[in-house]
Amino acid sequence: MRQTTGQGRGYLAKARVCIVGLGLMGASLAWALRRRRACRQVVGVARRQATASFAWEKGMVDEATCQLAEGLRGADAVILATPVRTVISLLGQIGPLVPEGCIVMDLGSTKQAIVTAMERLPPHVYPLGGHPMCGKEKSGARFADPDLYMNRVFVLTPLDRTGDHALSLALALVQAVGARPLVMDAQRHDRLVAAASHLPYLLACGLVATGETFAQDDSLWTLAAGGFRDTSRLAASDVTMMLDILVTNRTFILEALAAFENHLQELGRLLATEDEAHLCRWLQTIAERRRWLDCSHKEGVISGS
Amino acid sequence: MRQTTGQGRGYLAKARVCIVGLGLMGASLAWALRRRRACRQVVGVARRQATASFAWEKGMVDEATCQLAEGLRGADAVILATPVRTVISLLGQIGPLVPEGCIVMDLGSTKQAIVTAMERLPPHVYPLGGHPMCGKEKSGARFADPDLYMNRVFVLTPLDRTGDHALSLALALVQAVGARPLVMDAQRHDRLVAAASHLPYLLACGLVATGETFAQDDSLWTLAAGGFRDTSRLAASDVTMMLDILVTNRTFILEALAAFENHLQELGRLLATEDEAHLCRWLQTIAERRRWLDCSHKEGVISGS
Repeated sequence: MRQTTGQGRGYLAKARVCIVGLGLMGASLAWALRRRRACRQVVGVARRQATASFAWEKGMVDEATCQLAEGLRGADAVILATPVRTVISLLGQIGPLVPEGCIVMDLGSTKQAIVTAMERLPPHVYPLGGHPMCGKEKSGARFADPDLYMNRVFVLTPLDRTGDHALSLALALVQAVGARPLVMDAQRHDRLVAAASHLPYLLACGLVATGETFAQDDSLWTLAAGGFRDTSRLAASDVTMMLDILVTNRTFILEALAAFENHLQELGRLLATEDEAHLCRWLQTIAERRRWLDCSHKEGVISGS
Repeated sequence: MRQTTGQGRGYLAKARVCIVGLGLMGASLAWALRRRRACRQVVGVARRQATASFAWEKGMVDEATCQLAEGLRGADAVILATPVRTVISLLGQIGPLVPEGCIVMDLGSTKQAIVTAMERLPPHVYPLGGHPMCGKEKSGARFADPDLYMNRVFVLTPLDRTGDHALSLALALVQAVGARPLVMDAQRHDRLVAAASHLPYLLACGLVATGETFAQDDSLWTLAAGGFRDTSRLAASDVTMMLDILVTNRTFILEALAAFENHLQELGRLLATEDEAHLCRWLQTIAERRRWLDCSHKEGVISGS
């Protein structure tokens, strides 16, 4: 983990931070920054007036507007908190509206396509990618939570052009909301989250679909205990958000799917041929790894350093 | 849901209940019965003296022993709370030790193989299968919880020979620990839980294995947020217990695996061919079904009646 410098915190304290998109992630970030008095001003840009009013009334932002140009005026940091393809489209529009020296960041779950679009921003702005490893299956400002980012890993993917100033401001912002920054290359990020986040979503969807196949009536759903519900939880995620993720990380996701299918077929083969000794060793190794994952997170062994 | 009769509660109140196996499920059941003063006496049979002593000292049982014959002496109900293949092996041994008129039940996660073994019990005992839809990834008496069964579905699979007396005593016992009885045929049960419980376990295992494939270092585990952890949680389950389940429900599990693989391949195909409209509709339908599952459980719409 990189530690923020006093300088970064100083930049942030004086900054007007503009958050574009007041869904769950954007509204929670705005609220967290404001509650911790981490920056001079938080302005939120929403698509709908009702959302802007809601965020303002709840005290999540200092200002709220539906006018992108108004929100960006005087900003020191812009954070695009929309689905991935909307981020990419916004990156194509905001260049002329963003003040000199402003940093431009995002919260999208895939980073290669976004970083590529950031390369095309005019030279007077300082972009970098961001991806906080948190969320909920609920979307929208009304589910916002100022503690959503607490203790969560927050990946930053700087570009060659990002610059020290922008990176230290971003690090300060991440730490201000209680998250743990992890700096990494966009391509490496996308390959890892394909297996760590996007594959679990597809498995959850496939499981629900299989439930439908097996359920002639409601009995299957009655028998769906905690195990089914946990394993399938991600299937309730916002489809617009997930579709953007799937499409912009297609290659790595297909790679992760293929690796998973190989493992599942091997499992099926061991079961079909009743190779119990081998099956037992396989399941034992996996169980140990999974238990280690819980312990290491609890003990903070995995620090992302 | 069948409602218990006053008669069933009466039988239970006078019963000496012997629970064989003081793991998580057995110890929790004993504790729940004792705490609610649902029966005359709860006796626990453990393999190891340390477990027997622990359960007795914690007040989970009235008596604890490592001698099966001693535990079964004078019992009105015997509940086999061990892994499935140990249940089957116990069913082959206990016949001569079980008193006349005693009911014999189990808590195993698959029912066909157990019910078949129950058919071979001597005619003076009254067997039926049981499967409570609850559990934890932790095993052993030290994780026991007297509220483990609260509001959970508890499947009962009677045999032709079970008899009204045994069924009403079993229903009373299930309701005494706060669970919701659901009477169903053993074969139907096994097919449904293959998709509702055993498939999710295999997916969780395959996901952890894929994580291993993708993790050159610890970075993948650092990025494994709540989504990965929920989807893979079941992979930490007790392997001895799960192996018995897989082996005794092999045919239905292979059927569920094949159905799942078809769905996943279809998903992969839609993604690979960028058939976005179709993919979106597919994911939307699944998301709605998954959200319905949460709502219906909350509202008690799924009652298992």
